[in-house]
Amino acid sequence: MQDIEESLALIKRGSDELLIESELVEKLGSGRTLRIKAGFDPTAPDLHLGHTVLINKMRHFQDLGHHVIFLIGDFTGMIGDPTGKNVTRPPLSREQILSNAETYREQVFKILDPEKTEIRFNSEWIEPIGAAGMIRLGALYTVARMLERDDFAKRYRNNQPIAIHEFLYPLCQGYDSVAIKADVELGGTDQKFNLLVGRELQKHYGQAPQCVLLMPLLEGLDGYNKMSKSLGNYIGIHEPPREIFGKLMSVSDELMWRYYELLSFRSGMEIAAFQREISEGRNPRDIKALLAQEIVTRFHGQQAAVDALADFEARFRQGAIPRDIPEIVLDSAEGGLPVAQALKRSGLTGSTSDALRMIEQGGVRIDGTKIDDRDLTLKAGETVVLQIGKRKFARVSIR
Amino acid sequence: MQDIEESLALIKRGSDELLIESELVEKLGSGRTLRIKAGFDPTAPDLHLGHTVLINKMRHFQDLGHHVIFLIGDFTGMIGDPTGKNVTRPPLSREQILSNAETYREQVFKILDPEKTEIRFNSEWIEPIGAAGMIRLGALYTVARMLERDDFAKRYRNNQPIAIHEFLYPLCQGYDSVAIKADVELGGTDQKFNLLVGRELQKHYGQAPQCVLLMPLLEGLDGYNKMSKSLGNYIGIHEPPREIFGKLMSVSDELMWRYYELLSFRSGMEIAAFQREISEGRNPRDIKALLAQEIVTRFHGQQAAVDALADFEARFRQGAIPRDIPEIVLDSAEGGLPVAQALKRSGLTGSTSDALRMIEQGGVRIDGTKIDDRDLTLKAGETVVLQIGKRKFARVSIR
Repeated sequence: MQDIEESLALIKRGSDELLIESELVEKLGSGRTLRIKAGFDPTAPDLHLGHTVLINKMRHFQDLGHHVIFLIGDFTGMIGDPTGKNVTRPPLSREQILSNAETYREQVFKILDPEKTEIRFNSEWIEPIGAAGMIRLGALYTVARMLERDDFAKRYRNNQPIAIHEFLYPLCQGYDSVAIKADVELGGTDQKFNLLVGRELQKHYGQAPQCVLLMPLLEGLDGYNKMSKSLGNYIGIHEPPREIFGKLMSVSDELMWRYYELLSFRSGMEIAAFQREISEGRNPRDIKALLAQEIVTRFHGQQAAVDALADFEARFRQGAIPRDIPEIVLDSAEGGLPVAQALKRSGLTGSTSDALRMIEQGGVRIDGTKIDDRDLTLKAGETVVLQIGKRKFARVSIR
Repeated sequence: MQDIEESLALIKRGSDELLIESELVEKLGSGRTLRIKAGFDPTAPDLHLGHTVLINKMRHFQDLGHHVIFLIGDFTGMIGDPTGKNVTRPPLSREQILSNAETYREQVFKILDPEKTEIRFNSEWIEPIGAAGMIRLGALYTVARMLERDDFAKRYRNNQPIAIHEFLYPLCQGYDSVAIKADVELGGTDQKFNLLVGRELQKHYGQAPQCVLLMPLLEGLDGYNKMSKSLGNYIGIHEPPREIFGKLMSVSDELMWRYYELLSFRSGMEIAAFQREISEGRNPRDIKALLAQEIVTRFHGQQAAVDALADFEARFRQGAIPRDIPEIVLDSAEGGLPVAQALKRSGLTGSTSDALRMIEQGGVRIDGTKIDDRDLTLKAGETVVLQIGKRKFARVSIR
């Protein structure tokens, strides 16, 4: 029973919701190797740390001895966007899907244990059911219940079109759970409805319903919006080690703990020890560097992490910015301000020509990075740290 | 142009709605052989005259030189009731469907010209589209528009379940029109929505949309409810000629004209002439007999019609009931009244034993039919004509 409690604590770590805990306790208590399902898009994968939250959770289950099914939803991918409205989502060929699967494999096996991972494609069981099977699936769920899904409800209320095939996707996803006999399905909180459809379909097919474990969407570097490529607040696992390292070092202390919870494989006890050390005066930057090293090691290996740390420290020593520096707001003209003028008007140089000369001599840095472009213009809305030599700083906002 | 007007008049005869007339005029004007679609259930066919309204209309198109597709919806029939709730609708086997099709063939070729008729099964093109094709079909229509269908709207409003596959059926039916390139689809008024879906799907597939011709549901013998087996107000085309003949003779004069319009192949001019004759004093019964002969001839041949007429006239002469006969209300005991008591209490016989003797001698008729069961009991709520010999009548209501 102690074991089950510990397992449950690891499974629930960082999760948003577990349905239904008592059922999971029972499954864990059975001693069986559980079948853990998580579904992924078949589109070209280029994972960022946000995606890895789910994969890390799959790894937790593997660490507990369970079997993970990494499910690629190629069936719908091969259809493309059937409304034809989304030209950016053309159907994928079988070759593209296999190639994407290969890319997934390379990426996720940096986290998952290949021995306990099964990569499957849902076209394998959905195509054979045919048109008639799709009708039969449709019979298992009502329109009214489908319209209870938050996004459908909202669109229906606002007279935004919902195409009928959108009602079929959750049923296909649910049927996946039947086909692979999932004991647990993992997903983002936005997938709750679909994962519960899986439970219903399994019951209909005489299976014990899967438990549903919902993971939160990881916040991006801004600590507020969810991590996403389009928002630019992400860390891609394929980014160069230094980038990953630097981006992780840039997050707030608060966000660091969040990332520890969801991205680190350090135990809860280790993390608690770090928190104590900081409360006793240790610099949070050291702890952040440990996280950055762990993540870089995961995706690029030990040596890359060592190098990234050394590089970061060198840059930090050189580019360290004192805590108290003047904050200056400068007006732009036509949406911008040449950097030489900004240097003069912020008082860092006596004149624009002094500023230009300093740039040519390599004595000017913006946000710690040396510049050599005399004509560089700061844009309205930007806030940057201007630096002359090693001592003179100003934080300048252009408006 | 005269031709087109005449064709249009025949096509519209008895119809409820034509969408869109100008398009049909154009199609008729093209001189092409048009493809006329009508869909039928694959369940065991046992047609009654109500079903033949549509088939007669198909025949009209054939008379105008067009090609009819008699479409059997076997795709859904082979699925059965996918909700599993309706045990009376198990899936049909391929053999059953072919055997039902054979039965259809025997029945409808009493009306249709086999040379201009193509019998098709929609599984032929729906099965090959597979699960992916069903998703693509689903993408062509929105949930909101589907919920505009009267019966769906009502059920949704009343919180009665609508299963999602029910939304797929109209799309399959619409896709049938695409597959067979229908120029015109015929259906009952209750099929309007589904037939219009066919128009939309054809447009999506780059075809000219089919015209939609809606035929009314034929009233049954009561002249009020639609003809249906469960209401018992029907005339089956497999009933014995005498039954068909007698039932047709029993309809009201008003209903007779309705049946002439929808069931007879006599021209509008002939029918108008009949109406004139009656207004000039001809007995409507003669005109009704002509209709009865036409219908019996259609399904059982000329000789059967001659025999049925002769039989009817003999029975009529013998069993004719005078217009003015006494109307008597009798109280029942325990829900019934023995017929011998009814005869006595209505004054037709002097005593119950007289009545019993008359029954034994074959001198008693109920509603024109000789009875020989001394213990026959009339039920409360029944109204019958009791008759002794050729002269003595009473219309008796049991309460």
